[in-house]
Amino acid sequence: MTTILVLYDSHGAVKDLAEAIAEGVGSVPGATALSRSVDAATRDDLVNADGLVLGSPNWSGVTGRMKQWLDSIGDVWQEGQMTGKPGAAFTAGSSRSAGIEATLLQLIHWMLAGGMVIVGLPWDERMKRTGSYYGATVCGTVTLEDRELARTLGKRLAETALRLRR
Amino acid sequence: MTTILVLYDSHGAVKDLAEAIAEGVGSVPGATALSRSVDAATRDDLVNADGLVLGSPNWSGVTGRMKQWLDSIGDVWQEGQMTGKPGAAFTAGSSRSAGIEATLLQLIHWMLAGGMVIVGLPWDERMKRTGSYYGATVCGTVTLEDRELARTLGKRLAETALRLRR
Amino acid sequence: MTTILVLYDSHGAVKDLAEAIAEGVGSVPGATALSRSVDAATRDDLVNADGLVLGSPNWSGVTGRMKQWLDSIGDVWQEGQMTGKPGAAFTAGSSRSAGIEATLLQLIHWMLAGGMVIVGLPWDERMKRTGSYYGATVCGTVTLEDRELARTLGKRLAETALRLRR
Amino acid sequence: MTTILVLYDSHGAVKDLAEAIAEGVGSVPGATALSRSVDAATRDDLVNADGLVLGSPNWSGVTGRMKQWLDSIGDVWQEGQMTGKPGAAFTAGSSRSAGIEATLLQLIHWMLAGGMVIVGLPWDERMKRTGSYYGATVCGTVTLEDRELARTLGKRLAETALRLRR
Repeated sequence: MTTILVLYDSHGAVKDLAEAIAEGVGSVPGATALSRSVDAATRDDLVNADGLVLGSPNWSGVTGRMKQWLDSIGDVWQEGQMTGKPGAAFTAGSSRSAGIEATLLQLIHWMLAGGMVIVGLPWDERMKRTGSYYGATVCGTVTLEDRELARTLGKRLAETALRLRR
Repeated sequence: MTTILVLYDSHGAVKDLAEAIAEGVGSVPGATALSRSVDAATRDDLVNADGLVLGSPNWSGVTGRMKQWLDSIGDVWQEGQMTGKPGAAFTAGSSRSAGIEATLLQLIHWMLAGGMVIVGLPWDERMKRTGSYYGATVCGTVTLEDRELARTLGKRLAETALRLRR
Repeated sequence: MTTILVLYDSHGAVKDLAEAIAEGVGSVPGATALSRSVDAATRDDLVNADGLVLGSPNWSGVTGRMKQWLDSIGDVWQEGQMTGKPGAAFTAGSSRSAGIEATLLQLIHWMLAGGMVIVGLPWDERMKRTGSYYGATVCGTVTLEDRELARTLGKRLAETALRLRR
Repeated sequence: MTTILVLYDSHGAVKDLAEAIAEGVGSVPGATALSRSVDAATRDDLVNADGLVLGSPNWSGVTGRMKQWLDSIGDVWQEGQMTGKPGAAFTAGSSRSAGIEATLLQLIHWMLAGGMVIVGLPWDERMKRTGSYYGATVCGTVTLEDRELARTLGKRLAETALRLRR
């Protein structure tokens, strides 16, 4: 079984997106999602996973709480436990373009530093209202389309993990 | 008189934002806006200006046409003609978070490379629906609020130019 | 056979990196590199490729010439011809940290907008002197280590393309 | 007297850069530097300052410790205490292009979100070996040129603060 860790700092709508992402992961035969907030996640949850979907609210970028967790687990970037595994990002905030992309990019940066392979969202008409090439998003209140693109991201990440693992 | 160049690649709603920005510049006593699309702008328009507001549509980043113009005017970044002058950015695209911030950041990058001082937009309730810390935006059709924040950006840039010039 | 397009704007050391990347691609059984500068590349070269390594000099970001080529080939981002294929980036410039990462990020942005899966470089002691998590680099004159990490990137991209294609 | 807060997370060479920046600030008549690590800094240090130079090591981006401090001081971005004041960034890491720019950009993002006006470094021959348009840098061990460009940044920020304040 291919396990995808959905790891997030659970403020606001981020938890809702995490649920939709886990649904998307679970819809792929052979893949299963492990959802963990940074309050509960362990280093083993991360390094044992075959792929990662990483989410943080947009608090002028990634939250300190999320980054502290990432800093606390040691030098994964140097030791290579995540190298070659697929990663994807998600975020939620109150605005359309005031840090949504920047927050996703900070999460992507951390994953690229770990040698991960980055999966985003391809263009979709719904991207006029939700989501980003960089990952899944919420602006304000969670919409049906927010959840749909989050599911798409989870599904896409799981399929990529299965292909990369073979 | 302090002259602010509003320089843009005139696709879609970018021209509308350019107009609103020029209005904002013109509302500041002692400041005047010079609006030029990259079809008509000259190197002298740029280097003689006391400040710059630079706009491009979001075409998976800044348009090639805009960047070609910037590449064509010589090594302003090296020669320092824009050093210390204020700069700001604007963009328009079809999506909320699929390259809007990235395009603004590419424009800001070019201006920082020229030694310019960067002016964005402070938080505003309207930023839930338009604009970015990185500059003025349109997503889809131009709204009244898009124009309001663009005017705010033009005004802010002109005021900063007046202060920096003294 | 899995074909990887190495597409670049051939100023300065970018061509040298392109050669090393093509060597890395060619070292993987089942993969072959097609090297094209933007002067010669066609849309078919791009859409028929199974993966892409995209390179531009750092001219305060991607060159206008490279972006013009990308703009000229139509709405690949919308039509999805590159979706799910792996992509990687490379650049060369005169400085260590004055736009090297920004240029790579602009190339990565274009590829993510096309739905591509992004491959960078994992940490390596040589990264103190060359390369980036975002891709292969040269700062000033091409070094042996620059070429080594470029080869590593080409090899990594080709291996990823083979896995994703299966 | 115009006070510039030099605020940093004091790992590695970041403290050395902070000292050089404070020297640069102090070289400007009418300006004085207040240097504080995030262990000791208070919200009042920040909101009472006329300008800010913000530094973090490159730990795959800004440290969690630095971001926690920024998160802890309340909604400065919303309340506007820093709006219109100049800001600049600095960082130190072990590599040339593996997150140096990304870390500076994260610091710049936080300052733009607070409505600050961003001051970087104009081109300089020394930028082949140190520094970035985005701010002052160290790669590995601190060099004389690292300190020189850091001083330049502090001086430039203080001069900008004096002009903007008038």
